[in-house]
Amino acid sequence: MGVPETQWAQVIEQVGGPAVYKQIPVPRPGPDEVLVKIKYSSVCHTDLHVMRGELPMKMKMPLIGGHEGTGMVVARGELANQVKIGDHVGIKWLHDSCRACEFCQKAEEVLCPHAQMSGYTVDGTFQQYCTAKAAYVSRIPKDVPLDAVAPILCAGISVYRALKESGAQAGQSVAIVGAGGGLGALALQYAKAMSLRVIAIDEEREKQQMCMNLGAEVYVDFTQSDDIVKDVRAASPDGLGPHAAIIVAMSEKPFQQAPMYVRSHGTVVAVGLPPNAFIKAPIVETVTRMISIKGSYKGNRQDSVEAIDFFVRGLIHIPFKTATLKDLNNVFDLMDKQTIVGRYVLQMPD
Amino acid sequence: MGVPETQWAQVIEQVGGPAVYKQIPVPRPGPDEVLVKIKYSSVCHTDLHVMRGELPMKMKMPLIGGHEGTGMVVARGELANQVKIGDHVGIKWLHDSCRACEFCQKAEEVLCPHAQMSGYTVDGTFQQYCTAKAAYVSRIPKDVPLDAVAPILCAGISVYRALKESGAQAGQSVAIVGAGGGLGALALQYAKAMSLRVIAIDEEREKQQMCMNLGAEVYVDFTQSDDIVKDVRAASPDGLGPHAAIIVAMSEKPFQQAPMYVRSHGTVVAVGLPPNAFIKAPIVETVTRMISIKGSYKGNRQDSVEAIDFFVRGLIHIPFKTATLKDLNNVFDLMDKQTIVGRYVLQMPD
Amino acid sequence: MGVPETQWAQVIEQVGGPAVYKQIPVPRPGPDEVLVKIKYSSVCHTDLHVMRGELPMKMKMPLIGGHEGTGMVVARGELANQVKIGDHVGIKWLHDSCRACEFCQKAEEVLCPHAQMSGYTVDGTFQQYCTAKAAYVSRIPKDVPLDAVAPILCAGISVYRALKESGAQAGQSVAIVGAGGGLGALALQYAKAMSLRVIAIDEEREKQQMCMNLGAEVYVDFTQSDDIVKDVRAASPDGLGPHAAIIVAMSEKPFQQAPMYVRSHGTVVAVGLPPNAFIKAPIVETVTRMISIKGSYKGNRQDSVEAIDFFVRGLIHIPFKTATLKDLNNVFDLMDKQTIVGRYVLQMPD
Amino acid sequence: MGVPETQWAQVIEQVGGPAVYKQIPVPRPGPDEVLVKIKYSSVCHTDLHVMRGELPMKMKMPLIGGHEGTGMVVARGELANQVKIGDHVGIKWLHDSCRACEFCQKAEEVLCPHAQMSGYTVDGTFQQYCTAKAAYVSRIPKDVPLDAVAPILCAGISVYRALKESGAQAGQSVAIVGAGGGLGALALQYAKAMSLRVIAIDEEREKQQMCMNLGAEVYVDFTQSDDIVKDVRAASPDGLGPHAAIIVAMSEKPFQQAPMYVRSHGTVVAVGLPPNAFIKAPIVETVTRMISIKGSYKGNRQDSVEAIDFFVRGLIHIPFKTATLKDLNNVFDLMDKQTIVGRYVLQMPD
Repeated sequence: MGVPETQWAQVIEQVGGPAVYKQIPVPRPGPDEVLVKIKYSSVCHTDLHVMRGELPMKMKMPLIGGHEGTGMVVARGELANQVKIGDHVGIKWLHDSCRACEFCQKAEEVLCPHAQMSGYTVDGTFQQYCTAKAAYVSRIPKDVPLDAVAPILCAGISVYRALKESGAQAGQSVAIVGAGGGLGALALQYAKAMSLRVIAIDEEREKQQMCMNLGAEVYVDFTQSDDIVKDVRAASPDGLGPHAAIIVAMSEKPFQQAPMYVRSHGTVVAVGLPPNAFIKAPIVETVTRMISIKGSYKGNRQDSVEAIDFFVRGLIHIPFKTATLKDLNNVFDLMDKQTIVGRYVLQMPD
Repeated sequence: MGVPETQWAQVIEQVGGPAVYKQIPVPRPGPDEVLVKIKYSSVCHTDLHVMRGELPMKMKMPLIGGHEGTGMVVARGELANQVKIGDHVGIKWLHDSCRACEFCQKAEEVLCPHAQMSGYTVDGTFQQYCTAKAAYVSRIPKDVPLDAVAPILCAGISVYRALKESGAQAGQSVAIVGAGGGLGALALQYAKAMSLRVIAIDEEREKQQMCMNLGAEVYVDFTQSDDIVKDVRAASPDGLGPHAAIIVAMSEKPFQQAPMYVRSHGTVVAVGLPPNAFIKAPIVETVTRMISIKGSYKGNRQDSVEAIDFFVRGLIHIPFKTATLKDLNNVFDLMDKQTIVGRYVLQMPD
Repeated sequence: MGVPETQWAQVIEQVGGPAVYKQIPVPRPGPDEVLVKIKYSSVCHTDLHVMRGELPMKMKMPLIGGHEGTGMVVARGELANQVKIGDHVGIKWLHDSCRACEFCQKAEEVLCPHAQMSGYTVDGTFQQYCTAKAAYVSRIPKDVPLDAVAPILCAGISVYRALKESGAQAGQSVAIVGAGGGLGALALQYAKAMSLRVIAIDEEREKQQMCMNLGAEVYVDFTQSDDIVKDVRAASPDGLGPHAAIIVAMSEKPFQQAPMYVRSHGTVVAVGLPPNAFIKAPIVETVTRMISIKGSYKGNRQDSVEAIDFFVRGLIHIPFKTATLKDLNNVFDLMDKQTIVGRYVLQMPD
Repeated sequence: MGVPETQWAQVIEQVGGPAVYKQIPVPRPGPDEVLVKIKYSSVCHTDLHVMRGELPMKMKMPLIGGHEGTGMVVARGELANQVKIGDHVGIKWLHDSCRACEFCQKAEEVLCPHAQMSGYTVDGTFQQYCTAKAAYVSRIPKDVPLDAVAPILCAGISVYRALKESGAQAGQSVAIVGAGGGLGALALQYAKAMSLRVIAIDEEREKQQMCMNLGAEVYVDFTQSDDIVKDVRAASPDGLGPHAAIIVAMSEKPFQQAPMYVRSHGTVVAVGLPPNAFIKAPIVETVTRMISIKGSYKGNRQDSVEAIDFFVRGLIHIPFKTATLKDLNNVFDLMDKQTIVGRYVLQMPD
């Protein structure tokens, strides 16, 4: 395939942004890299945080953001034999890791202290051509629409892994807190696809119908509850509380309520990342009821394969709107005003 | 064996105490119970809390306290075929559970909502003859000294189970916080007997030598540390922090520090029960480092068998002083003044 | 409720049978037992083996067989507080266990060396009134039909536990060998209810449609295969072979084929019990592909609760025919001639 | 460091051998490779099998064998940043894997269908300078003797992983079958270092003392046993049989005996690779006792780190003799005559 010398990209030229839509050279893949012609890149809230310099690590500058991109391989380095020219692939948050630390060697590469992140410490997917490590891209079957699958590469993987981390087994009950949001709607669908029984928890009456449609068995509006512990337990099939709770909410309170309402020996999995917020739980109750509270962050590469497979099998649906790469700053504006329902997926210019 | 009609006991006649040393009838075992002639009963801090009415559940009244008793079976009911007359046994905190709820059926009987506790909701071991459920007593080999083994029945089991809950495997490193106290010294010995490498953490320089003698590899005095996270990580073999931390301390701060210094994917196990205290951990760091925080409470009956087995094999040593049943209130006084080092074990009158 | 003095029962008076339909006294429950008025008892192939004396343990004689019985509690002993008069319950193969050995204390009570079995070492459910240990009966919601649920109590539990033992997770693929038989049809439905993807394997073309209707994704007729390893692997979604195989077949060959076609690191779970047959696997391939082969036997009491819950939720359907207690020997005859499709459930006389 | 143009190597020029000691060019590392100046390479029985063409995969030809080599990094490719020039490293059986299949992504890289093996499908360590993938070498602390540690890289890792696969926990009992051989002596020491209690099983009275010295609690000479099941069970602390058995023997019989003597719910781990031999176990007993039989092959890279760490801590001792690279064929001769006790370690010419 003919790869041009230049391309369109959204370039952050200083911390704080904005992204500048301009022409830049097409990068060349290293020996273990592929060059991916990006077709779609969905926009994650993290992209906005990155542009604003709100994340703790040192970011590349100038930077091309984006970490939920899909496209096809158009070139590859001499060692990049994990994929072939023409393969459809996805580019994720995790660009690369050291491959030889304890975390990499245990398949927990997102915890690698030398991990590189797409659209953060290396250039990401808000460009027409993006390089990626051949061993770290996600393969996507050719009959899968590249726009719809894009959000799976970050949000889908995160909630799928969190559900695995919960240890909940088929037939057990799981509370999903923040079920009415984007991550929540995905978590709910994955839970159902994994034969878990969902108690959806969120804060507005309007979200109830959507949650029930996606497969929740019960909905609890926590703003209407005088006693959330009592109400969530009552919503569980046997009244003892859910076996696990997955917190995808962006406020602090649910992280402090969940340890109280999961059943004894239950597990609370924290996924959401409200800034400057704390997990808090009374020691006596946590000990005597043997509660576990754990953080779950993205997922490893095998989690990605599995999360995509659920999507490919038609079990996961994500509402999204399409815009063009040029519209990125507009999408950021909408995001900032919190008026987005579902995900925005940017189409690259031809 | 001849069982008398009356016996000496320490009876709490009103909430708040004191215990009254008096003669009372010897109880008779039910169909699934044994009658145990108690030889020794060690005194746990919980016994003092019970007498003072500081625990949340409704206590039996009048009450005979005590839940770390050892002795021999002298009578048994028609269904009590799990042990034989003459067998040496221990009586633990868990007197009985419903045997048919989710927790009992998963061998997590301490979490049973219908659990009965020795010396709290039923009469305990501060008497010469105590009834116990035959399926819930711990069998003790006949060549094991009944005084030295008594503290294993509560403290030993608790720390042994906590170490199992940590998931730390042979060769990995574990921080024990409060290592210089009674529970801590046991935790340290069990950790070593399980091939774990111990970073002992406590607050006085004097405790260092004891911890090193019991097998710690490093000692960190947290009162002397300007940066406990840095110092504990530096004390771990590879500098990444211990794989787990077991908190047996009775103050709140260690519960909030440990999630910060365990390595990524590490586990903090809460065992100590400081009243009105909270586990607290920043959400962003807990999620992105995938930290687990979990409560561990006592242990199940199989944990007891295993904890006792380590003691029987000579791998665990507990310093203790002996007093007589009559001395119970004196022991409570010393406990209250926090002047006890090691455990007090009460000998029953002949 | 009025409990009569005498009742109808099917009594095996000598090893080899037959069962004699006669009137006998109604038994009385011991202190930890309930008396269950049996409404239905399904007939398992094991009942026939028991009557013929083909099982290894010493059987009670004279004996009332049956171990898949359902009914309601009509009396209970003083300790039998796990259930109430009027509760609907099921009686399973495991009548009782010692409650205090390593296996009982780890919730693996079916492995207890002192286990007692209904309809084998103690009288079972082919009678109008049967005693059972209160902690070992299975509670059944009152709106569940007592005839349809009966086969879950043995067959359902066995296949459900085997699927758990396989370690297969939601979305992974499982071969069920003997999928067209009674156990197989249940295994297939449980697998589907647990979000596993099923490769059904059996020996007749006619069974294909039934397996596909019950949720199998692929059917392999092993009698038509020249290369079963190649064909089963090809039937798995990615061609590497299923993650696990559950062998409910009653012939030896599948136990020897499965280790060859499961994927590397895969698990073969043996459930079927062909007499005098052997698991056999080449050492070099088993080691270098890290294959696990494990036996799974019935399930523990919590497995029963969960297996029944899947049935209660309407996810499991069992074809059965109804006969009366009087017909037992006829059912055994049909069983012997292998002309039964589905399960026979015997109704007790009023 | 000055790297010469040519070097001494032992080259297999045709299947069947012999190895020819000759000068050849020093290879150059690829972008993700290092060049290791080999100091020592121990000789494994597999090296002899490779030379004779007795292993199933297609071997490189001409081939330099050897897969237990130690030395220091003298050059590295542009991507090989996992190690530095001067680092001490070990080269193992696993040379490389695809890094992106299900097995690689789950940290089970030895099962990768595209795995490359040192001294088999690529040139190995019987040469002065050997290339290796930077992410696959084992780092060795600089104060560790490079001769003594060499056998850990294959034999040590294999038995360590097998012990982990057994699931045996600290304080439980493990039978090691073939305990008196090279692999067995390592398995015994690792088991002890992991707080397992060892029943050593082998076939000569003379091996008893060595096994007891290395930490076995009991020795069973299976050639002297009329009833190996009874004798091994009797040798376990509670008479129920060991919780696991690790079979490192090279004969078939132990693989068939072990499922019979491990306790119910016990695990048999196959490590030894007797050619044309079979695991065999009666189905009824395997199912009703819930026995697991599993293969364990080498270990992943993290297992290597851990196995080496036990060695570094002084817990593992391996008897070895030193020869020079030139002596390889002589060592093969001794190996063939089965007159070697311990391991031969070849020193490279300066």
